[in-house]
Amino acid sequence: MATTTEHRHVDKYALLAAVPLFKDAPDHVVEVFSRASDFSVYRKGEALFLQDDPTDWFYLILSGWVKLFRETMDGNEAVIEIVSSGQLVAETAIFENNEHAYSAVAIEDTGVLRLPVSALQNAIEKDNQLALAMLGSLSLHRKRQTREIESLTLQNASQRIGCFLLRLCRSDDDGPIELQLPYDKTHIAARLGMKSETFSRALNKLRQETGITVKGATVTIPTIDVMSRFACSGCSNEFPCDDMH
Amino acid sequence: MATTTEHRHVDKYALLAAVPLFKDAPDHVVEVFSRASDFSVYRKGEALFLQDDPTDWFYLILSGWVKLFRETMDGNEAVIEIVSSGQLVAETAIFENNEHAYSAVAIEDTGVLRLPVSALQNAIEKDNQLALAMLGSLSLHRKRQTREIESLTLQNASQRIGCFLLRLCRSDDDGPIELQLPYDKTHIAARLGMKSETFSRALNKLRQETGITVKGATVTIPTIDVMSRFACSGCSNEFPCDDMH
Repeated sequence: MATTTEHRHVDKYALLAAVPLFKDAPDHVVEVFSRASDFSVYRKGEALFLQDDPTDWFYLILSGWVKLFRETMDGNEAVIEIVSSGQLVAETAIFENNEHAYSAVAIEDTGVLRLPVSALQNAIEKDNQLALAMLGSLSLHRKRQTREIESLTLQNASQRIGCFLLRLCRSDDDGPIELQLPYDKTHIAARLGMKSETFSRALNKLRQETGITVKGATVTIPTIDVMSRFACSGCSNEFPCDDMH
Repeated sequence: MATTTEHRHVDKYALLAAVPLFKDAPDHVVEVFSRASDFSVYRKGEALFLQDDPTDWFYLILSGWVKLFRETMDGNEAVIEIVSSGQLVAETAIFENNEHAYSAVAIEDTGVLRLPVSALQNAIEKDNQLALAMLGSLSLHRKRQTREIESLTLQNASQRIGCFLLRLCRSDDDGPIELQLPYDKTHIAARLGMKSETFSRALNKLRQETGITVKGATVTIPTIDVMSRFACSGCSNEFPCDDMH
């Protein structure tokens, strides 16, 4: 990890003030976090922290991608989420008994603002507005995880890939849409809880059912309507999902 | 639904004060909820509320079992959780845009305290202690859902049933243990995201692997050690799980 010692104060303040958690926080609260934070860069493959590490820091991702996962006793990985710029990682660490409940590893070169968990603990104890913002953020997480559980229970593998692609589209897109996969297919498969072979077979089926084309990292979806009829029929949400930004 | 008009004030106060959410709340806050609540009984099959209903009430379950689920467009059900006495339902409704995100139906005759969502909204805005308690409760939900996602991704059907049974044991139990299934097998299968046939096959395999016996609703586990070695090897938690009570 490379930490810059240079203090780019104004930038940090602006970056933090744009995060939903701090959006309605008083200036002096954002100021505290801005001063206590530092820029860091993690190279592809580097860990921000590992499961069971002490929860000293939480992170605002500025660029790149970070995989959050847990490892099982027999050596498999359960990917919880893959997060990117604008998202916080480990901001709920104050409720984790001082140990991270999962590992966080950069899957691309990743820039972050690193912030002390103790400052967050102090701030939410003093500032009810921040506690409420944190409740809103946790509740959004809950909504996403509920959808994820539903999807794992009821959608087949092709529908899950379709759902993943739809969530990369803007909700007012109509089609045809050309989009770039955000990270490589191995990570997408892991994110969707599939083995690589399952992913390939399911992607083929999705091609046949919806007419999408895939060239490297470029996916073309002919019509959103066909895609959402295929993917969303196994789900209780309709496109666009209510937890999309 | 049968609502008793009789005001059993002291009981309601004591019931509420025992809930983690209200445990550290000031007396006058618990008092407000106690006064605003009423006892209700829902018969087996009755809905506390349906998905998209307005979020006027949240509920403390006193007895019985309530199934929380979402329905997909093609008519399948995704069971999110099956909850019982001491647990709150829809306490996060204030973050749901005024519509319940799921349905809640009694699967046994169920007694509840029904509480106004507006009172909770007011209380957490005024009382930071309550906001913090709510954060703790949401964060526990998140931990459970993360485990659930992991389990759906990595455990096979037999391991998932084993995990469900282990979570009914006290963590200091050693074995042999005789336990009662909390609700019928159809609901257990649905709770675990399995079709009935998958559940039967997986239960048979679990019998062979761990020597458990099942007679009606009575399950005997010869040793916790054998069961946890079988079920927990596909999971990153070790028995006892850190989100067990």
